[in-house]
Amino acid sequence: MRCDVLAIGTELLLGQIIDTNSAWLGEQLAEAGIDSYDHRKVGDNLDRMVASLKDLLANADAIVVCGGLGPTPDDVTREALAAVAGVRLERREELVESIAAMFGTRGRDMPANNLRQADIPEGAQVIPNAMGTAPGVMAEIDGKVIYAVPGVPYEMHAMVKDFVIPDLLERAGLRSVIVSRSLKTWGASESGLAEMIAQLVDDQSNPSIAFLARGIEGLYVRLTAKAASVAEAQSLIAAEEAELRAILGDLIFAVDDETMESVVLRACAERGWSLGVAESLTGGLIGARLANIPGASETFRGSIASYATEVKRSVLGVTSDSVISAECVSQMAEGAQRVLGCDVAVAVTGVAGPDEQDGQPVGTVWFGVAVPGFATETVATRLPGDRERIRQFSTISVLNLLRLRLNSLP
Amino acid sequence: MRCDVLAIGTELLLGQIIDTNSAWLGEQLAEAGIDSYDHRKVGDNLDRMVASLKDLLANADAIVVCGGLGPTPDDVTREALAAVAGVRLERREELVESIAAMFGTRGRDMPANNLRQADIPEGAQVIPNAMGTAPGVMAEIDGKVIYAVPGVPYEMHAMVKDFVIPDLLERAGLRSVIVSRSLKTWGASESGLAEMIAQLVDDQSNPSIAFLARGIEGLYVRLTAKAASVAEAQSLIAAEEAELRAILGDLIFAVDDETMESVVLRACAERGWSLGVAESLTGGLIGARLANIPGASETFRGSIASYATEVKRSVLGVTSDSVISAECVSQMAEGAQRVLGCDVAVAVTGVAGPDEQDGQPVGTVWFGVAVPGFATETVATRLPGDRERIRQFSTISVLNLLRLRLNSLP
Repeated sequence: MRCDVLAIGTELLLGQIIDTNSAWLGEQLAEAGIDSYDHRKVGDNLDRMVASLKDLLANADAIVVCGGLGPTPDDVTREALAAVAGVRLERREELVESIAAMFGTRGRDMPANNLRQADIPEGAQVIPNAMGTAPGVMAEIDGKVIYAVPGVPYEMHAMVKDFVIPDLLERAGLRSVIVSRSLKTWGASESGLAEMIAQLVDDQSNPSIAFLARGIEGLYVRLTAKAASVAEAQSLIAAEEAELRAILGDLIFAVDDETMESVVLRACAERGWSLGVAESLTGGLIGARLANIPGASETFRGSIASYATEVKRSVLGVTSDSVISAECVSQMAEGAQRVLGCDVAVAVTGVAGPDEQDGQPVGTVWFGVAVPGFATETVATRLPGDRERIRQFSTISVLNLLRLRLNSLP
Repeated sequence: MRCDVLAIGTELLLGQIIDTNSAWLGEQLAEAGIDSYDHRKVGDNLDRMVASLKDLLANADAIVVCGGLGPTPDDVTREALAAVAGVRLERREELVESIAAMFGTRGRDMPANNLRQADIPEGAQVIPNAMGTAPGVMAEIDGKVIYAVPGVPYEMHAMVKDFVIPDLLERAGLRSVIVSRSLKTWGASESGLAEMIAQLVDDQSNPSIAFLARGIEGLYVRLTAKAASVAEAQSLIAAEEAELRAILGDLIFAVDDETMESVVLRACAERGWSLGVAESLTGGLIGARLANIPGASETFRGSIASYATEVKRSVLGVTSDSVISAECVSQMAEGAQRVLGCDVAVAVTGVAGPDEQDGQPVGTVWFGVAVPGFATETVATRLPGDRERIRQFSTISVLNLLRLRLNSLP
């Protein structure tokens, strides 16, 4: 089974938007064991879309077309599918109703343009869109299949996971099962990590071992096993994971869908401790990441983003002269414990740039971790990169410090 | 003149690396006034590379092939060019020397594999690589031209700017200038916006008008003008922008590199007002966005992310029974003014999900805006989507409310 990808959008060709969709699709297809050899981008141009689709259909068994399903006149994926299939568009009344209902719940009138989204090629199947107004379309053409999905990533992701991949697997008459597992690490460089597990990588083919550098999400070690059954694949992965954990130890902070913040919240919750934050250069990023975890309210109390020095003093009770110092970050963490009424607190202060502050260079960051019954721990670091990168790295770094601190407690 | 793009690399198809090169190339070509209609990605596979190149050459005047010039055996772009041109590879002695010299300056021995990088199709021209060991290649085939450039972005950028674009412009025989301008809007749907300016879009070809949906960054209306000089292109854009502003008015919140948060910070600064935030479901996102603007510290005081109800009461002084209400969000905004000592405050409280809260459904969000000398304004809305989307939309929506409030003041 070979499934190629066509991304639609003049803005992609002009470089106004980077096409991340086809990379994501490639990853999903690879994990499902489906070959994908030709990815293309064309603009919102009916003739060129039709030509590309016909061309791809000559070699592939299936195509995912991504984008061009919107309500505006330049969205012509529906027309292109009809042209390739040699059929007409027909308006589906059930879609008219569901699109109108979608606008109804938002308390807005439906512009007439949106009715175009109810036009589907004759004989094609509608793919439901749980996340937006643009329905997807599946059209079968001479024993091959084209899936048209929206270009909006979260709408596309849901549709591909829930419909496209299962449908492709069914058509492929799935023989082998693929199971993946990502061990997420923080604290080692890619080359450092590669050296630590070089022997394992050389000795191993199933599961395969790959590195994925995900920036502020960490460095992932991804295991992918192929086997006759899910249970067999999982057992291959479990054996390999045990060997990796013996080498990497505390560098591994999470697995698969877990994140640094979900792991830290769980570790606090297991001890019955609530968590609060005092931030400066991050401005609220740490709180925002914690609050993004469903169920965070069981544990997360809140965050004081004390950006101005006066706010550090008046709200958190900071008295130290320098606001870029161990004393300051320690007082911020303890201030957060007091003001937010939480058991555990982390704090960050530093220089995000573009200018130095208090005579400290850009990238200087102090972290503080306060847990009940122990002295507040402070650590200084010097982070590289620009303002955004320094703030993002500060966020995950202080959460990682808290993770290690909690792991080290009796 | 039409120049298409072929990006090479199996890791691109597998989604292990996102192809940012072709977007960058598309931008450069568009700015130079060169059409680019078909961008493709294929893996490190000689047959498929040759087929794609021949296919693209049928429609385009030129192709930029990006990647596959490295020293390892899976780098076969040189072989593909030779196959398409119907010639053999020949080893260029001057390249052997320069590659060896490159290794010499880095104090490393040259692996034998690197000699492959000195193999160039007969009759082709070498494009110098000032930044790395992989020389580029320009091959002319039946009056058309293929440029092979490295996949490493900074090496590719230099080669394209210094050689490829000038060479293309010379072949095209004329230079027209392209100037773009993005008007960023918030508050109308894509289809609603399209209807408002349908007449302008129909009547207009230079500047062209395109819509870019950027999710929580807003909906952009992008004007692109083509002219003989920058001044002429800018004047075409200025005239069109005036017509658009007459129709879209306050929906336009920013232009080009400006963001909602930079605009709001500037509007506060112009009145000499400091700004603070009280957040609940956003957990710190609003503060984090404001703090990301360089120079924010002139205006932004901080943010209280009062995630737990008790923190809303103890820190912000909220007394209302329900924490999802006009009274609560109003007390939060006024609490932020008091606690953070700021002139202007925005506040957000609501239900991000997954579960309803206080009998209010997921997506219910209250916004509050407090400015000096006026009663605090509160607005309720019902946002669609998942937890992350509700939090992100809440963030930009409340900043937009503040923007409109400040605009409306005497």
